[in-house]
Amino acid sequence: MSAFEPGRVLSIQSHVVSGYVGNRAATFPLQTLGYDVDVVNTVQFSNHTGLSTNGLVSHSRILTGYVPGAEALKVVAEQIKKMKEMNSGTVYVLDPVMGDMGTGLYVSKDVVPIYKDMLQIASIITPNQFEVELLSGISIDSMQTLHTALRQLHTTNSLPHIAFSSIPLPISLVTTLNLPPPPPSYMRLLPDPIPPWYDAVGMGEPEDETLVCFASTWQDGNMETWAFALPTIRGYFSGVGDLFSAMVLAHFDNPDSQSDLPPLPHAVSKALLTVQQILLRTHLYSLAQTSISGSATPRPLHHSPNEQHSSVIPSDAELDAAVSTNPKDPRRKAKRMRLRELRVVQERGLIADGGQGWPGKALDWQGILEHGL
Amino acid sequence: MSAFEPGRVLSIQSHVVSGYVGNRAATFPLQTLGYDVDVVNTVQFSNHTGLSTNGLVSHSRILTGYVPGAEALKVVAEQIKKMKEMNSGTVYVLDPVMGDMGTGLYVSKDVVPIYKDMLQIASIITPNQFEVELLSGISIDSMQTLHTALRQLHTTNSLPHIAFSSIPLPISLVTTLNLPPPPPSYMRLLPDPIPPWYDAVGMGEPEDETLVCFASTWQDGNMETWAFALPTIRGYFSGVGDLFSAMVLAHFDNPDSQSDLPPLPHAVSKALLTVQQILLRTHLYSLAQTSISGSATPRPLHHSPNEQHSSVIPSDAELDAAVSTNPKDPRRKAKRMRLRELRVVQERGLIADGGQGWPGKALDWQGILEHGL
Repeated sequence: MSAFEPGRVLSIQSHVVSGYVGNRAATFPLQTLGYDVDVVNTVQFSNHTGLSTNGLVSHSRILTGYVPGAEALKVVAEQIKKMKEMNSGTVYVLDPVMGDMGTGLYVSKDVVPIYKDMLQIASIITPNQFEVELLSGISIDSMQTLHTALRQLHTTNSLPHIAFSSIPLPISLVTTLNLPPPPPSYMRLLPDPIPPWYDAVGMGEPEDETLVCFASTWQDGNMETWAFALPTIRGYFSGVGDLFSAMVLAHFDNPDSQSDLPPLPHAVSKALLTVQQILLRTHLYSLAQTSISGSATPRPLHHSPNEQHSSVIPSDAELDAAVSTNPKDPRRKAKRMRLRELRVVQERGLIADGGQGWPGKALDWQGILEHGL
Repeated sequence: MSAFEPGRVLSIQSHVVSGYVGNRAATFPLQTLGYDVDVVNTVQFSNHTGLSTNGLVSHSRILTGYVPGAEALKVVAEQIKKMKEMNSGTVYVLDPVMGDMGTGLYVSKDVVPIYKDMLQIASIITPNQFEVELLSGISIDSMQTLHTALRQLHTTNSLPHIAFSSIPLPISLVTTLNLPPPPPSYMRLLPDPIPPWYDAVGMGEPEDETLVCFASTWQDGNMETWAFALPTIRGYFSGVGDLFSAMVLAHFDNPDSQSDLPPLPHAVSKALLTVQQILLRTHLYSLAQTSISGSATPRPLHHSPNEQHSSVIPSDAELDAAVSTNPKDPRRKAKRMRLRELRVVQERGLIADGGQGWPGKALDWQGILEHGL
């Protein structure tokens, strides 16, 4: 890949759901060549090849995300049920986007029971902590309650796979679980020497928190759960969860993406590597653009669940100041927001490469439940 | 790239114009891994970073395509005018999508005068024959009338670049112009031996027609026009023009994509190679899927302008029969349509590679106009 950054394109054309005309014929090829394409869809064709039930049967995988209204979600659920009936091998990844610990619910509350019902048709769900608690009705404050919540989601709904994207846990717990550190391919993306704002897994005080991701599979009456510890770069970057779900879908049961791990931990491991690498590169880019990387001071890493998006990245005011010294410059906000956009196009090499995956570890549930932690 | 075809994904999420959340965070990464993603947008956020005039200024390139209504096109034109005023270096590629020789006009007729007005802010336009004639008011039936039409578009509107996507011309004319044949990198994609349905440039009878693309630049009172002869694979594949326009935008004045040609012929040359290669691979895939490649007989290559989409690819009936032997199978139409979708994701390697470009030749207008052809 070249050092040249081709820049940002605005493309105003039609959108089709399926096939490659209009913006669909332009966007991916431009992105493949490194262009960051902003897409305005003039006409939203509901389909190009007849996206009826008939046309849908050949999808081998389905991914659903943010559907804020109950009526629309009902239609989506009905369609997917039909597709699963016609092809039981379809892999359906359901991201039950409903809210987070900081904000609370950000969809209509009528959506919640529909998602609960949809758990029965999902192959994999990718909830965050708020969504696990909402779907299971169990508040997670220990490994025991985590076990209960996961088990209930699996057994009540015949749900084979849960990719619990992240929950903040005390470093002391992560140390006891003996979760592996970030992989070398990720560490190589860090500046040398490793900057003070970076905190690898478990390097803080025992009472500090770090994020942990869980990949849980129910099979033959047995629950196997893998845990993955994540380093503390928790800047608020939109779309991280969406990218994670898509990458879990991409690497699940993919013959091109094999390893010795079982299917779900493998997919989660690969997804986490991609997401963490892109997050780190986006963070580094943001710091470089604002030219305040030198002055970025380490901040306390105490996170309450309500603050899991708190950040060691520059504040809005710091970013604004870096973008323009004129406080009335209307472009400041737009430019600041752009510094936080995930660099998926620029870092497409990291997506295509995939790497060895993020290291994790299967939990010894019996030991944890019998002896505690 | 692997031989594994990851298959087709249906993704139902939100759409944002700018930034990478929802479907925007999922689609490109999945496509990069080879998935063919059908995209249903649940919520169409008009913007994520504030796509106001303020937010738009940092686009270095703009591409517009199908905007069928006059009111919407007026808004688009106003926005682009503002963006050009704020940044005169912005490259604006305008595809004046209005119709084709076979179908006639397929947008509101009120759109035509708006496009005529917009020629003044375009850097490059990418019209087909119907659109060149409509915008110039000149019917093209000879090299002389082609010269008049191009010259008028350039001079009336201070329009620096015209990429005239294609016009069918008699092979005798192409022979006289001595246009170069397809490049080796393209020929290597053809099966060996070259199948009977394939007709390289100028291989037919003198009165047969072949497609020619023109790249015309006006500079310092001089019009330089390059011509590119295209082989006769003219199956009707939707999105070819949209892909062409996007690739012209991508390769125009792109430091990563240099050659000895002037900027427009260079961009057109690169765009044609990508488009022709993807067309050929899509055609070959379509034939292979229908298992009738052996029986595909060469058809007459006489094309009237009204028939430029006529085809040597299988007929609908042939495709239907190959997809399913049951004539009442409702999936037949959907599957047939899919065989004609451009394989941009599967052939992404051809897009990223770019190659040396499609060979063309600068026209000797003075000789042509003085001595005729």
